[in-house]
Amino acid sequence: MGINSPLNRKLRMGLVGGGQGSFIGRVHSIAACLDNRAVVTAGALSSNPERSKASAPDYDIDPARAYGSYQEMLDAEAKLPEGERIDFVSVTTPNHTHFEIAKAAVEAGFHVVCDKPMTFDLAQAESLLESVQKSNVVFAVTHNYTGYPLIRQAREMILGGELGEINAIRSQYIQGWLRTSLEAEDQKQAAWRTDPSKSGAAGAFGDIATHAYNLGRYMTGLLPDSVSCSLKSFVEGRRLDDYGTAVIRYENGGLGTVTASQISHGRENDFEIEIDGTKGSLRWRQENPNEMIVRRNGSPHQIYTRDPGGSHMNGSGAAACRLPAGHPEAFFEAFANIYAAVFDAIAKRAEGGPVEKRDTIYPNVFDGVEGMYFIQQCVESNIQNSAWLPLKHEAARR
Amino acid sequence: MGINSPLNRKLRMGLVGGGQGSFIGRVHSIAACLDNRAVVTAGALSSNPERSKASAPDYDIDPARAYGSYQEMLDAEAKLPEGERIDFVSVTTPNHTHFEIAKAAVEAGFHVVCDKPMTFDLAQAESLLESVQKSNVVFAVTHNYTGYPLIRQAREMILGGELGEINAIRSQYIQGWLRTSLEAEDQKQAAWRTDPSKSGAAGAFGDIATHAYNLGRYMTGLLPDSVSCSLKSFVEGRRLDDYGTAVIRYENGGLGTVTASQISHGRENDFEIEIDGTKGSLRWRQENPNEMIVRRNGSPHQIYTRDPGGSHMNGSGAAACRLPAGHPEAFFEAFANIYAAVFDAIAKRAEGGPVEKRDTIYPNVFDGVEGMYFIQQCVESNIQNSAWLPLKHEAARR
Amino acid sequence: MGINSPLNRKLRMGLVGGGQGSFIGRVHSIAACLDNRAVVTAGALSSNPERSKASAPDYDIDPARAYGSYQEMLDAEAKLPEGERIDFVSVTTPNHTHFEIAKAAVEAGFHVVCDKPMTFDLAQAESLLESVQKSNVVFAVTHNYTGYPLIRQAREMILGGELGEINAIRSQYIQGWLRTSLEAEDQKQAAWRTDPSKSGAAGAFGDIATHAYNLGRYMTGLLPDSVSCSLKSFVEGRRLDDYGTAVIRYENGGLGTVTASQISHGRENDFEIEIDGTKGSLRWRQENPNEMIVRRNGSPHQIYTRDPGGSHMNGSGAAACRLPAGHPEAFFEAFANIYAAVFDAIAKRAEGGPVEKRDTIYPNVFDGVEGMYFIQQCVESNIQNSAWLPLKHEAARR
Amino acid sequence: MGINSPLNRKLRMGLVGGGQGSFIGRVHSIAACLDNRAVVTAGALSSNPERSKASAPDYDIDPARAYGSYQEMLDAEAKLPEGERIDFVSVTTPNHTHFEIAKAAVEAGFHVVCDKPMTFDLAQAESLLESVQKSNVVFAVTHNYTGYPLIRQAREMILGGELGEINAIRSQYIQGWLRTSLEAEDQKQAAWRTDPSKSGAAGAFGDIATHAYNLGRYMTGLLPDSVSCSLKSFVEGRRLDDYGTAVIRYENGGLGTVTASQISHGRENDFEIEIDGTKGSLRWRQENPNEMIVRRNGSPHQIYTRDPGGSHMNGSGAAACRLPAGHPEAFFEAFANIYAAVFDAIAKRAEGGPVEKRDTIYPNVFDGVEGMYFIQQCVESNIQNSAWLPLKHEAARR
Repeated sequence: MGINSPLNRKLRMGLVGGGQGSFIGRVHSIAACLDNRAVVTAGALSSNPERSKASAPDYDIDPARAYGSYQEMLDAEAKLPEGERIDFVSVTTPNHTHFEIAKAAVEAGFHVVCDKPMTFDLAQAESLLESVQKSNVVFAVTHNYTGYPLIRQAREMILGGELGEINAIRSQYIQGWLRTSLEAEDQKQAAWRTDPSKSGAAGAFGDIATHAYNLGRYMTGLLPDSVSCSLKSFVEGRRLDDYGTAVIRYENGGLGTVTASQISHGRENDFEIEIDGTKGSLRWRQENPNEMIVRRNGSPHQIYTRDPGGSHMNGSGAAACRLPAGHPEAFFEAFANIYAAVFDAIAKRAEGGPVEKRDTIYPNVFDGVEGMYFIQQCVESNIQNSAWLPLKHEAARR
Repeated sequence: MGINSPLNRKLRMGLVGGGQGSFIGRVHSIAACLDNRAVVTAGALSSNPERSKASAPDYDIDPARAYGSYQEMLDAEAKLPEGERIDFVSVTTPNHTHFEIAKAAVEAGFHVVCDKPMTFDLAQAESLLESVQKSNVVFAVTHNYTGYPLIRQAREMILGGELGEINAIRSQYIQGWLRTSLEAEDQKQAAWRTDPSKSGAAGAFGDIATHAYNLGRYMTGLLPDSVSCSLKSFVEGRRLDDYGTAVIRYENGGLGTVTASQISHGRENDFEIEIDGTKGSLRWRQENPNEMIVRRNGSPHQIYTRDPGGSHMNGSGAAACRLPAGHPEAFFEAFANIYAAVFDAIAKRAEGGPVEKRDTIYPNVFDGVEGMYFIQQCVESNIQNSAWLPLKHEAARR
Repeated sequence: MGINSPLNRKLRMGLVGGGQGSFIGRVHSIAACLDNRAVVTAGALSSNPERSKASAPDYDIDPARAYGSYQEMLDAEAKLPEGERIDFVSVTTPNHTHFEIAKAAVEAGFHVVCDKPMTFDLAQAESLLESVQKSNVVFAVTHNYTGYPLIRQAREMILGGELGEINAIRSQYIQGWLRTSLEAEDQKQAAWRTDPSKSGAAGAFGDIATHAYNLGRYMTGLLPDSVSCSLKSFVEGRRLDDYGTAVIRYENGGLGTVTASQISHGRENDFEIEIDGTKGSLRWRQENPNEMIVRRNGSPHQIYTRDPGGSHMNGSGAAACRLPAGHPEAFFEAFANIYAAVFDAIAKRAEGGPVEKRDTIYPNVFDGVEGMYFIQQCVESNIQNSAWLPLKHEAARR
Repeated sequence: MGINSPLNRKLRMGLVGGGQGSFIGRVHSIAACLDNRAVVTAGALSSNPERSKASAPDYDIDPARAYGSYQEMLDAEAKLPEGERIDFVSVTTPNHTHFEIAKAAVEAGFHVVCDKPMTFDLAQAESLLESVQKSNVVFAVTHNYTGYPLIRQAREMILGGELGEINAIRSQYIQGWLRTSLEAEDQKQAAWRTDPSKSGAAGAFGDIATHAYNLGRYMTGLLPDSVSCSLKSFVEGRRLDDYGTAVIRYENGGLGTVTASQISHGRENDFEIEIDGTKGSLRWRQENPNEMIVRRNGSPHQIYTRDPGGSHMNGSGAAACRLPAGHPEAFFEAFANIYAAVFDAIAKRAEGGPVEKRDTIYPNVFDGVEGMYFIQQCVESNIQNSAWLPLKHEAARR
C-alpha cells in the first residue's frame, strides 16, 4: 500500500517557526517525517527573513521556499500548482502568534497542526474554531501526550467501560527549570513563557497544566462542570504563575485535581496521571511511558507494557506502536502519532468521505478551545479567591 | 548502659484495646516492645470483660491484670506499688472512645500513647490538651509515619534550611480497600470507620488525610493559614467521605495539597509526600520507605537511602535506624521509633529535669489538637462549598 | 490461645555473642522477641567475661545469668530446674566459633539457632549434623532471607508447580562496603570477615553467596549436580575473595548462576533472585521485599505485593505476614519468621509428636551442611581453574 | 550549516531487506532518516523480485530503483552518476546473507551499515574485515545499544577514568518470546533465528548475548583474555541455544559475566549492564534508558538522567541527545545515533582527511569480527565442558 493512500505520496509540510535555537519546531519536523509520510517542503522559519533563509538548509528546504514570513509563505504556496504546494502548515511559534498564523492558514485552505496552547486567549480560540468549522481542513493541536500508545490504550479501555464509572482523576505535571528567574537572564525559552504579552494569561497553567487537564479529558471523556483554582508565582518578580493547583468537579460527580509546577528542583517533565473508576484504577507517568499500572481490588497489580502483540492491548493501543515490547518508544514517537492521525484524516478527506471533526483521535480545534477556556477560568478563579467557576465550554469534544 | 537509663528497667505497658481481631493493638505492643525497653504488663483488651481476659494469653499478660474495663485497669494499677504498676497506657480503641480513656489515664498520672485521630471532635481534643498541660505526663499521638528514619532526616534537613524556604507540599494518601461497601458486609474495620458515631465527622479525611497533613507540618514546620476542601462519598450509602482533596495556604505564602482516597482500586497504603523549597526538593513514599529522592537543579538526582553510616545522614536520621543500609526497615520499626522517643521522654522526666512538651520529636497532644482542627475545618469547608476557612490553631506546635 | 501453645509461656533464650558493638546478636534478640513469644533470659555476650556482664543490662538480663563464657552458660543453665532454664541458644559469634558452641549446646539438650555460615568448614558441619541427628533438638541456621513472606509465597508456588519445570535461577548479592581495605583500618566487621582463620575458606562467597545459593535451593527444591566457580580478590592485600561468580548445573538440567560482590561502590545489600520456569517466571529483590514480579507470556506482568488478604497469596505466604498490604515489612520481620518457625517446632516437640527435621520451613542443619559444601566446592573449583566439581551433598534437604 | 556539511545534501540509502513483514529493515529506515540527513532512495527489499517491487511504495522508493536483488541494485546504482547514486547500503537481511551482500557493497565502493551479528561465522567476518581495510568505505555494525546517550556518557566517563580501574562487568539480556517452540508454528522471526543454517552457530548467544558482550567492551575498553561458557536449549527440539551464561576474564584481571535468555516468561528486552570500578559503579537498563545509576561509597546514589543541559553530562553524552531532560528518548533515537555517527564519518571522508577506522564512536567492522569470535568461542567452550578458551582477537578495537 502506498504512502498516505489513496494519495500515494508524501505530504508536504510548511513549517512556521523552527529557526535556529528553536526547540519545538525541530520536534514537529522530526515527528511529522518519522514515518516517511511527510517532507518539510517550505518554511517561514523565523520572523526575521534572513534568519529564516539561513535556517533552511537545516531542514533541506529549497531556498526558494524559505520564506520571510508566514504570510509570504501562504501566498506563494497557494499559487503553486496542487501537485507542488504544501499540504499542511505546522505552527510552532510562541503562543501570542498562533492565532493569526493558524487562522490565515485555515482560510487559505491548508490543513494545520498548531502547537498548544492554541491561541493567546479564549476569544481568539473561539474565532479560530469558527474558521475551522467553515473550512474543510484538518486542524490539530499538539497535546502530544495523547499520542502515547498506552494513553490511547487507556482511553479505549475507559471509554469501553473497563474501569467502570470514573470517580477521580489526579493529574500533575511537575518541572523545576523555572526555579530561578531565568527570564532575568534572558534565557529564550523562559523569556517568552513568563511574559504575559507573549504567553497569555497564565504561565505554568498555560504551558503545562493545560496538558494535564487535557489528558484527563481525552482519556476519560468526563465532562467538566466547574473549577476552583489557586495560582502562585514563587519566583520573585515573575509576572505569571509558576505553580498552582486546580480542583475540578465533573458533571458525573467525579472529582479531579490538576497540579502544575515549574519550581520543583530537579524535576524534569514529571507528568503523571492517575484515574480511579468503580471497576479499576490506572496510573501512567510520561517519563517512563512504556508502562502503565492497572489495578483491581482482589487481583495482583498489573503492569501493562506497551506491547503491540500483547493480549492486554486493544486496537488503538496496538495501532500506536512501532516497536515490539521491551524496545522503548518515547516522546518523538508519541508526537509522531499525532501527525500520523492527522495524515490519516487528510488522506481520508482526499477520498471525499464524511469526516469527524470533534471526537477525533488527535487533539483538535475543539480541544484547543477547551484548553483556552480552562486557562481563562483558572486564572479568573484564582483572582476570585478560588471561587468555583463554570468549566464546561459548549465546544467540549463530547 | 541500662535500659531506659536512669530507670534501668523495662517500662510497663497497660494496653487498652488489642483484643482478638484487633489490628492496631497488636501493632502497638510489637512496636513498644521491639527494643526490649517495655513489656505488656496489663490490659483492658476489650470492652467485653470476658473477651479481655480471653485475649490476655496472647500477650502473656498475667490473668490478674487482664481487666474488664479501662476504668478498672486504671483504678487497680494506680493502687499498686510504684515498682509494680504500669508506667504508660496505650489507647488503641476506635476513635470515639479515645477521649475518655486518654483523659482518665492522664488524670490518673499515667503516660499515654494514643492512636490517631486523637479524639472524636475538636472540643474533646482541646479538653484533653488542658488535662495534659496540667499534668506531668508524656502524651504521644501515633502519627506513626513521623517515625521513619528518612522522615526524621528530612525534617532536620528542612528545619536546618537545606531546602531553603518551603514553597509547596504535596501529600497524598491513596487506598482502595473501601472501594465497595464493606460496611454493609459488617467487616469490622470498615464498619466503625464509616460510622459517624464512632469515627467522627470525617471518614478518609479523619483516617488518613490527617496523617498526610500532619507529616507535612512535622517535616517543614510551616504554619498553616487556611484551608479549602472538597470531600466526596463515592460508594453508595456511605455516610462519610471516602475521597477528598484539601488545598492549604501556609502563613509563609506556601501552598499545600492533601489528597486522600479509600476508593482507588488496588492501592494499598500509597502515601507519598513531595516538598519543594527554594534550594532543593524531596520525595518520599511510605511503601518504599528506605529511600528518599533529593533533587537540586544543576546536580544529578540523589537517592538518600536509610543509611546510618552514610555521610548524607544527619543526627536525627541516623539515630532512628536500627540496621545498616540495604537491610530494609519498615512500618514496625518506624512505629517503634515513636515509642522509643516516648520512653526517652519518660526516662528524662524520671530524672526530674525540665521537659519539652510542644516541639517534641514524637507527635504529641498539640499535634492531636491540630489534627482534630484540620478534620473539623475540612469538613466545614466542604459544607460551605470549599470556602477558605482558618486552619491555624493556637495549639500548633510552632 | 496461649503463647507457644501448648507450652503457654514465652521461651527463654540464651544468647551467645551480642555484646557491645555487635550487630547480629542484637538482630537475633529483636527477631526472637518480636512476637512476644520469647525473652532473652541468659547470655554469654562476649568472650571477655567482664564485657559479657557489662552488656547484660542492654538486654535486661539478670546479672546472675550473664555468663563469662558459653560453657559456663550451658553448664549453669542445664542445672536449673526445667521451669527456669533457657530453652534455646542463639549462636551469633564469628564463624570460626560456631561449631564448638552449637555442638555443645546441642549435646546439652538445648535447641539452637545458629548464624550462617554454620561452621568453619565442612567437616565441622558434618559432625554437627551427626550430633543434631542423635539429639532431639530443633536446629536452625539463619538464612534469614527465607523468612520473607514473598519468598515463602514463591516457594509454595514453585513446589506446587505453578511455574512449571524450573530451568534457570539467577541470584546475585551485591555489596560495596569492602571496596577498600577496611580490614587494614581494623574495622571490626571487616577484620574477621576477611581473616581466613576466622571466616573460613571464603570471603564474599562464605558471607553472602551462601545466602544467594541457599535461597535458590530453598525456593525451588532443585537438586544441584555440579558447580564451576571463579573467585577474585580485587582489593590489594585481601586474603579472601571479595567477588565471584558460580555456575551451577542442577540435576534436572537447569542452569543456575550465583554472583556475589563486596566491592561494588554504593551497593548495599542488593540481593536479587530471578527464577524461570516453563510456565512462569519471577523476580524478587530484598531491598524492596514487599513485592515480587510474576510474569507469564501472554499476560500483563503481575506485581504480587505482600498482601495477607490477597487472592494471589497462598498459605505459607499469608502466614508469614504481620501487617496488611501496603504497610511494609522488612528485615527484622523476616528474621523473626525464622524464629517463629523454630518456636512452632519447639512447641510441637513439646507435644511429643513426630517432627520433620530435613524439609522444614526454617533453614536447618542440613542446609547448614549444604552451605558449607557449597563454599568448599566453590573455593576448590576456583583453585582448579573453574573445573566442574560435584555439588550434591547427601545431606541436601530434598 | 547545511545537512551533512560539507556535502550539504541528504545521503541516499540503498536498503537491502525491509520488505513487507520485516521488522528490522523498517527500523533502519526510520533511524537513518530521523534527523533528515538521509533518504531511502533505492532498495532490494526482498529476495523475491516481485515482493521487492511491491514493497517499494512503503518507502516512497521510485519503482525504477526497487531492484529484484542486491546484486542488481549494486550494479545499477554504481552506474548512476555520482550525484544520483546511493551513498550507502543498509543490510537488514537474515544473518546468513549478510556477508555476501556487505562484501559486494564494500567492493562496489558503497559505505555499509550492517545488522548484527555481522556474518554467519568468523571466517566470513575476517574476510569482510580484509575487504573493508582495503577499501575507503565507512562500515558500521548496528550494535544499536551503543547509541543510547547514557551509554556514550558512561563510556566517556569510564575511558576518562572516572570509575577508576574496572574490576567487574555484569551484563544480562533477558527475553521470553522463545519460551515455546514458535519455530514449530512457523513464526517468521523465530524460524530463522533458531535455524543453524540461517542464524549461525548460536541462538540466543548470537542474537542477544553478542549485544551484551559488545556493550561491556564498548563502554569499558577492557580487553578480553578468555571465556568459559555454558549454553542450554531448554525448549524441546530446538537446535540452538536459548539460554546461556559466559564468564569472561579480562586482561586487566577483571571478571565479566554475560547471561542471555530467550525463555524467561514475560521478559521483553530486559538488557542491563552493571560496571564496577575502583572509584565508582554504574547501572543502566535499556527498558528505562533515560536514567543511569552512578554510585560511590560515601555519597548518596546518583541518578544521571539523560539531560543534555545537565552539569553531570559530558561531551559524548550530551551530543547524543535530541530532547531536553524529562522528555524521554528511546530505541529509535539510539539507533539513529549510530546512523548519525556514520553520516559524520561519510561527510568527513568527503573532505578527504584521514579517518579513524578502529576506535570509532559507532560500532564497526572490527567489532563485528569480535562479535563473531565471541560467538565461536562461546559455542566451542560449551562443547568442551565450559573450558576456558581465548577471547582476544587481534582485531579487537583497542
